[in-house]
Amino acid sequence: MVAAGLPDVVELEKLPARVLICEVGPRDGLQNESAIVPVEVKLEFIERLVDAGHQQVEVTSFVHPSWVPQLADAEQLLSRLARRPDVRYPVLVPNARGLDRALDAGVTEIAIFGSATETFARRNLNRTMAESVEMFAPVVAGARERGLRVRGYLSMCFGDPWEGRVPLPQVVRAATALMGLGCTELSLGDTIGVATPGQVRALLGKLVEAGLDLGSVAVHFHDTYGQALANTLAALQCGVSIVDASAGGLGGCPYAESATGNLATEDLLWQLAGLGIETGVDLAKLVETSAWMAGQLGRPSPSRVVQALAPH
Amino acid sequence: MVAAGLPDVVELEKLPARVLICEVGPRDGLQNESAIVPVEVKLEFIERLVDAGHQQVEVTSFVHPSWVPQLADAEQLLSRLARRPDVRYPVLVPNARGLDRALDAGVTEIAIFGSATETFARRNLNRTMAESVEMFAPVVAGARERGLRVRGYLSMCFGDPWEGRVPLPQVVRAATALMGLGCTELSLGDTIGVATPGQVRALLGKLVEAGLDLGSVAVHFHDTYGQALANTLAALQCGVSIVDASAGGLGGCPYAESATGNLATEDLLWQLAGLGIETGVDLAKLVETSAWMAGQLGRPSPSRVVQALAPH
Repeated sequence: MVAAGLPDVVELEKLPARVLICEVGPRDGLQNESAIVPVEVKLEFIERLVDAGHQQVEVTSFVHPSWVPQLADAEQLLSRLARRPDVRYPVLVPNARGLDRALDAGVTEIAIFGSATETFARRNLNRTMAESVEMFAPVVAGARERGLRVRGYLSMCFGDPWEGRVPLPQVVRAATALMGLGCTELSLGDTIGVATPGQVRALLGKLVEAGLDLGSVAVHFHDTYGQALANTLAALQCGVSIVDASAGGLGGCPYAESATGNLATEDLLWQLAGLGIETGVDLAKLVETSAWMAGQLGRPSPSRVVQALAPH
Repeated sequence: MVAAGLPDVVELEKLPARVLICEVGPRDGLQNESAIVPVEVKLEFIERLVDAGHQQVEVTSFVHPSWVPQLADAEQLLSRLARRPDVRYPVLVPNARGLDRALDAGVTEIAIFGSATETFARRNLNRTMAESVEMFAPVVAGARERGLRVRGYLSMCFGDPWEGRVPLPQVVRAATALMGLGCTELSLGDTIGVATPGQVRALLGKLVEAGLDLGSVAVHFHDTYGQALANTLAALQCGVSIVDASAGGLGGCPYAESATGNLATEDLLWQLAGLGIETGVDLAKLVETSAWMAGQLGRPSPSRVVQALAPH
């Protein structure tokens, strides 16, 4: 068991047989790292992630480079990326201009980034929540007309640094609005990592009541308060089977003032492997990749599994 | 919410209304730190833990100093510790000699440390499992005769670095043997941190089948693979209401080769607070204590909550 680097398998009732991991390390991860990574390293990173078995890798963003300099090489990256037919490579797109750039780059799946709170909509999108939905409408419609899949991220679903508690009906309205535009998948984000399992179950319950199909719902937890994996377990117990995670926990330097790291894909894989849930992703290959990436960034990975299996 | 440093409260079904945390930082934590902490610092640490609301703090060990030099000052510490009547201060005792020393020091609660595997019994106790139970028998009997409570730790319940998978019936036999000696509490240890939630539920189910009362069962998880909090949630869902944790995640340096840190009490508290589960422990005071202790040890705390609320 330990030699092979995998946990014992004991299943738990009411869990999905298979989980699709949406690997967000190259986009959400690198976007939140202070270092700017060369495009060659990004290309090797993505290639390794796919080689480890990932079937969905969010690779970059068409947000304006002045906002996210870490991903300013989106066009270059996509032109050089060898895309495999059985792998999905979503790209974050903030607006109609971003969609045009994505289409020019041959993207077949996009993601949009909505907010469950007014304050974050104002700060992140410079719009009210209603205005941001209006802005996204032609983006989603344009993408869907061309046969693209569309992930709808909803941030601040469980807490907002300025507003504090986010009322459930408000989150449900925002989620319904995004899905109403034609999104094919909804990713519920705990952007500041404050959620606990009761909140997760409560929100998912309300979304089901509102008519959403949990088969199209992903969860996106940040490990700021160490809650990401327990929250994921709660979501799986509710019937969710798509989980966002970031290789090596990329996306927030440990011991930095705002440690906003994503759930580490390796820590998630350890749990899923132990629960007998299929992912298609090879843990050893992923650990090797994250250890290599940590070397590129010049700092240890915050993933506990990476620390245990590939000590710095 | 965020300003106050506490999560929103949303309860989850089937959870206990109250959890008793057994704070093991001063013993299990410091025993596994490379630094040797002066007795004055230990005394202030314990005082602060109790001041934060802890009602059960494992303070030291009477293991031979050559084995655990970090706790060689057990007598001195206990002679100077101002014990409060409403707080339990268990002390680890390896054998009859240790019990004598503990009784001399006025200890009213001891803990013994058994193994669920032959290899670890041999390596840690230099005995077979059966011989170690024989060794503990007079210790537990002697303690119980004098009215002391006895915690029975059972290590390697979910995996062993030499033996790998540990068969459930073997763990149940070892647990039953410890409780059969007269232990008042059983603490199930995932010493190498490999467990996942299905294993936790499976073992607890078997213990109930074997006639054990989960009201006397504690769980003791290590966060080596990032699984400790999710495993704790699974245990709470089964009816466990005693959880061992270590302030600041003391007990395993992050990024060290064998990162064997205990579940951080703060990360546990965040989850329990969010679930509306009472503990009596003040998160802010504990974070302050762990940040102070990290300063004493000269390195950041591995607790995510401490990192978020008291950045290094």
